[in-house]
Amino acid sequence: MLNFENDYNNGVHPNILENLIKTNDIQSLTYGFDKWSESAKLKIKQICNKEDLDIFFLCGGTQTNATVIDGILQSYEGVIACEDGHINVHEAGAIEAFGHKVITLPSRNGKMNIDDLKNYVQVFENDESKDHVAQPGMVYLTFPTEFGTIYSKKEIEEIYSTCKQYNLPLFIDGARLGYGLMSDECDFDLTWLCRNCDCFYIGGTKIGALCGEAVVFTHNNAPKKFFSIIKRHGALMAKSRLIGIQFDTLFTDNLYFKISKHAIIMAHQLKEILIQAGFSFYIQSPTNQQFIIIPKKKIKELKQKIIFTHWIPYDRNSFVCRFVTSWATRQNEIDELRKILLS
Amino acid sequence: MLNFENDYNNGVHPNILENLIKTNDIQSLTYGFDKWSESAKLKIKQICNKEDLDIFFLCGGTQTNATVIDGILQSYEGVIACEDGHINVHEAGAIEAFGHKVITLPSRNGKMNIDDLKNYVQVFENDESKDHVAQPGMVYLTFPTEFGTIYSKKEIEEIYSTCKQYNLPLFIDGARLGYGLMSDECDFDLTWLCRNCDCFYIGGTKIGALCGEAVVFTHNNAPKKFFSIIKRHGALMAKSRLIGIQFDTLFTDNLYFKISKHAIIMAHQLKEILIQAGFSFYIQSPTNQQFIIIPKKKIKELKQKIIFTHWIPYDRNSFVCRFVTSWATRQNEIDELRKILLS
Amino acid sequence: MLNFENDYNNGVHPNILENLIKTNDIQSLTYGFDKWSESAKLKIKQICNKEDLDIFFLCGGTQTNATVIDGILQSYEGVIACEDGHINVHEAGAIEAFGHKVITLPSRNGKMNIDDLKNYVQVFENDESKDHVAQPGMVYLTFPTEFGTIYSKKEIEEIYSTCKQYNLPLFIDGARLGYGLMSDECDFDLTWLCRNCDCFYIGGTKIGALCGEAVVFTHNNAPKKFFSIIKRHGALMAKSRLIGIQFDTLFTDNLYFKISKHAIIMAHQLKEILIQAGFSFYIQSPTNQQFIIIPKKKIKELKQKIIFTHWIPYDRNSFVCRFVTSWATRQNEIDELRKILLS
Amino acid sequence: MLNFENDYNNGVHPNILENLIKTNDIQSLTYGFDKWSESAKLKIKQICNKEDLDIFFLCGGTQTNATVIDGILQSYEGVIACEDGHINVHEAGAIEAFGHKVITLPSRNGKMNIDDLKNYVQVFENDESKDHVAQPGMVYLTFPTEFGTIYSKKEIEEIYSTCKQYNLPLFIDGARLGYGLMSDECDFDLTWLCRNCDCFYIGGTKIGALCGEAVVFTHNNAPKKFFSIIKRHGALMAKSRLIGIQFDTLFTDNLYFKISKHAIIMAHQLKEILIQAGFSFYIQSPTNQQFIIIPKKKIKELKQKIIFTHWIPYDRNSFVCRFVTSWATRQNEIDELRKILLS
Repeated sequence: MLNFENDYNNGVHPNILENLIKTNDIQSLTYGFDKWSESAKLKIKQICNKEDLDIFFLCGGTQTNATVIDGILQSYEGVIACEDGHINVHEAGAIEAFGHKVITLPSRNGKMNIDDLKNYVQVFENDESKDHVAQPGMVYLTFPTEFGTIYSKKEIEEIYSTCKQYNLPLFIDGARLGYGLMSDECDFDLTWLCRNCDCFYIGGTKIGALCGEAVVFTHNNAPKKFFSIIKRHGALMAKSRLIGIQFDTLFTDNLYFKISKHAIIMAHQLKEILIQAGFSFYIQSPTNQQFIIIPKKKIKELKQKIIFTHWIPYDRNSFVCRFVTSWATRQNEIDELRKILLS
Repeated sequence: MLNFENDYNNGVHPNILENLIKTNDIQSLTYGFDKWSESAKLKIKQICNKEDLDIFFLCGGTQTNATVIDGILQSYEGVIACEDGHINVHEAGAIEAFGHKVITLPSRNGKMNIDDLKNYVQVFENDESKDHVAQPGMVYLTFPTEFGTIYSKKEIEEIYSTCKQYNLPLFIDGARLGYGLMSDECDFDLTWLCRNCDCFYIGGTKIGALCGEAVVFTHNNAPKKFFSIIKRHGALMAKSRLIGIQFDTLFTDNLYFKISKHAIIMAHQLKEILIQAGFSFYIQSPTNQQFIIIPKKKIKELKQKIIFTHWIPYDRNSFVCRFVTSWATRQNEIDELRKILLS
Repeated sequence: MLNFENDYNNGVHPNILENLIKTNDIQSLTYGFDKWSESAKLKIKQICNKEDLDIFFLCGGTQTNATVIDGILQSYEGVIACEDGHINVHEAGAIEAFGHKVITLPSRNGKMNIDDLKNYVQVFENDESKDHVAQPGMVYLTFPTEFGTIYSKKEIEEIYSTCKQYNLPLFIDGARLGYGLMSDECDFDLTWLCRNCDCFYIGGTKIGALCGEAVVFTHNNAPKKFFSIIKRHGALMAKSRLIGIQFDTLFTDNLYFKISKHAIIMAHQLKEILIQAGFSFYIQSPTNQQFIIIPKKKIKELKQKIIFTHWIPYDRNSFVCRFVTSWATRQNEIDELRKILLS
Repeated sequence: MLNFENDYNNGVHPNILENLIKTNDIQSLTYGFDKWSESAKLKIKQICNKEDLDIFFLCGGTQTNATVIDGILQSYEGVIACEDGHINVHEAGAIEAFGHKVITLPSRNGKMNIDDLKNYVQVFENDESKDHVAQPGMVYLTFPTEFGTIYSKKEIEEIYSTCKQYNLPLFIDGARLGYGLMSDECDFDLTWLCRNCDCFYIGGTKIGALCGEAVVFTHNNAPKKFFSIIKRHGALMAKSRLIGIQFDTLFTDNLYFKISKHAIIMAHQLKEILIQAGFSFYIQSPTNQQFIIIPKKKIKELKQKIIFTHWIPYDRNSFVCRFVTSWATRQNEIDELRKILLS
């Protein structure tokens, strides 16, 4: 069975596995104070070329979003997000579980539009009854988005500028950050990102790790008592070495970027095959997720040989389906897909 | 200054005041066990022609919505509402404060559309990843809506039928229930309503009382331990006599309906005046709230003589403004408005 | 039936009733902006002889505690209270409902002891794992306490001094504040209190009002966006005039203190009768609540003529029972009790 | 530096590491549907000799407690625990974060006493104002306790019997379950435990795994929608294989019990050394945690050579200190400790 279901069906990158083996007999401190976590933080600071980062390692994406957002917001504040942002659609109400409203803006190709954001904050500021409304407290973006699209430098600059004007911290969910940064269309890097938002996370689970996300507050702006907040969210890992070692490896010799780039190269080939096979694309994605429209009958047929996700209904007869490459996708899997679809 | 701002600028209906005076020296039980609360419950059951109602008196609207919704839902469930439903826009995140997502559907003239609801539940049911999503747990309607519009018998029947099919209790926010029921366009009454939803509340604050809303669970379906839930929400009134006496009076000699009808008659005259004055209506409302579009400059001028609300921006140059009549609106106030607008 | 059950079995003080009647036809602003609320705030500032008070009117005690405590605390913080403090035992988990732990200290005669408090904060500060623990964020006292006892000037000074040293705002629950201040044993007044805590509330429900508590932040230290926090708690009253008029009356001509004093005088007589009748006192209370130990059999007998509460079990055969006087207790009720118990 | 700080300073058991290596190239399903999770569940059912277990794998202890307790309780319910139970003292308010009160009973040698529990539920049931109180919804025990002590068969039977009488599900926190079961003093096994509580978890993090706890609902009584509840808590692991493989290994060839037993053997030797060195024991612990009283000066001296925790203050001059053995403790570490303390 050929698998293009997602980017977390595989084990862990061999380099990480090797380091887990090497370090296994060493005793270490816990709760984030182990030496590998320290080393990983240093390496992230170096690649970001910024000393004043506050870095924390958490386990998974939903947990990270819920903890960071709850940490940044006051109790009575909500988070502004696209209507199809991950926190609004695929986290089972984890943000609301901690008392915060997700305030939604329209999605334009999966992205938040600067005009929608400006309009929202201006209407809010001028609303006579604004004190009766959930207060906006921050802005949440995904990069890449749920539909694989990415923001340009200019788009993030505009959003961040509005955020600063209205005292709304900007947080970027980077569950697939590497795949976004390595996209041919991306016009910035980590160094730039660190200077154009207040917080982001570097996704590990979907890019080579077994688990783990690295939260980066970009200017020593971690919420007060963030360690206790992590603990209160049930997100503090006792054996933090597990995530420390993984990020220490991912940020050695640019591994994170190399394996992200690999997924992009595989995605280019995937896209080419899907085009040749005559599929319509639901959206133009420059990253490792590709969304095509497939009639229900065809889905059934393809699913006998290929694992992929039918994402959302497109119309009465067809679905938007998702094919994903990853750091682990092998050339022979692509070749096999080509055979199935094009012969 | 002429006041059409809202339906709670006035004191209390004289009959209620009289009963507050009459009963003031009587000692009573507390927390809902006073004899007037008991009497009021009986009268509501009589008018509904239904014995198996569970009735509770709470203090205000947001509190009632938050308590009822949190009482009905399991922790992991959300409430389906129109995007402009009161709980989504004007309750400062009170629903989310108790951990529940407000799942929004489009608003059609302020109302939920049966096709939107059906589509939502069907897509949800067929979603492969539905367990990763905030679970729908109930449906919330307002009657009348935020824009003064009302549902027909048929519309509620269709919605309730879908609710039952998917095990989603239907809760109707009746902060202005009387004004809806007394509208010329309304084709049902309390007796019918009791049989076509699982819970509703009869608004007192906006219809003659100083405070108080009567929550009605329509078939002995009050959530388990609802008394404790009310207390936990800080919504249990010690001197419950205050609300008991008010509802006992409102449901004596059909007072609630008579004074609601009065507001509707006043609204007809108001509407006529607004039409003659040449204003465009934002929406056709058959109840006591009327929404017209007024250029900004004109708003400024009118506000020197009349209190009303500018509700939402309409376009760059004008606002949707709201004029409201109530149980307390006097004929001379309408006449005065006529003079100002038409002479 | 003679009623010594509690201090909220009666209606409203006649002066308040009169003002409700007088003002009933006047239209007013809402949500706390009515003129009576404004006037009541001024009068409270005058009696406190302090300009920089932030004052808010809420409806009931549990609601007030939950709103104030949630407003003061950060999400990850808890409130330090006596184990028998109202928030820990009689509020159905309303503090926890908003995510905050009640951190309990022993009760000494219903009161928090300075040594227990100091010991707690010192142990906490020196705890290696203190970041894994619910963070203390404020201190909560009741005055008078659940058992009618009161703190002295010196006791509050010591507690407040420790609070300031550890950055823990001090909040005093004054549901029965007047009865405490008017006790013969009380050695301070409102003016002093304003300078020796960060927030307190003046209870109305139990002292002459139908509902309403006045929250006082003592040095313009209301939590940011406290209005929205009140709304989010479902605690914002639309017709705020109801509470405004009541507090405006209570703080006219020292009514609040006069009627509180009356309850204390009645309590002295009550106490004398209970002593003469040979009952043992569970605790020495200088305020309007008296706690005596009564054998179960005797309770049954007395309850045929008198309403009172059996509070907590004392031993296998007897209960601690509570008798309460109030602003509304009449001399003839006391005389009647004397007859029953002493003849 | 000799390390007796805790039981999670080491890496992972070699057998697990081997299986992580072996399986690394295999693609798998996610979110708990991978084949190793399935296999681990089967093995746990076999060893428990019970088919009707609902088993879920979560990441860490606090997360597991918060998720299970929130899953079992209704919103308005609290959990009964010892005052020194982990959820009350070392989880940073994670239970309260989801709205639930921790209702505390005294700790007797770290354990809940059946008489305290019975007394609590009886007083609650007979409390006139019980509806105003946080409702008890379940009972939480730790096995072994925070102080390393264990319950006997009889003690658990008595508690469970009372639980069933009052409809309070019994949940046992087994973060160190293996160490308890392998203690010489333990008079039951997993098979028995499954029949004497409603839910427990088998701790992995502290017994050989890198992370992971196995939650067992003992009679197909998992809360409705528990999968969504896990997700809402941010506790759903995408690459569930990580935990699946670990538990599959731990429950192969009784590995879990063998390595737990090893820690107990090491603890016996540790205890012997501590006795010979003349230390006083704070409590008699039959498991892998030993608590001794050490003067402050001595602590300073010992900490130059040994890592251990000073747990709680004992008196002005000394601390209760904790020494811990684990699955990974080596004989030479014990020998080294002997040299330091006894020569």
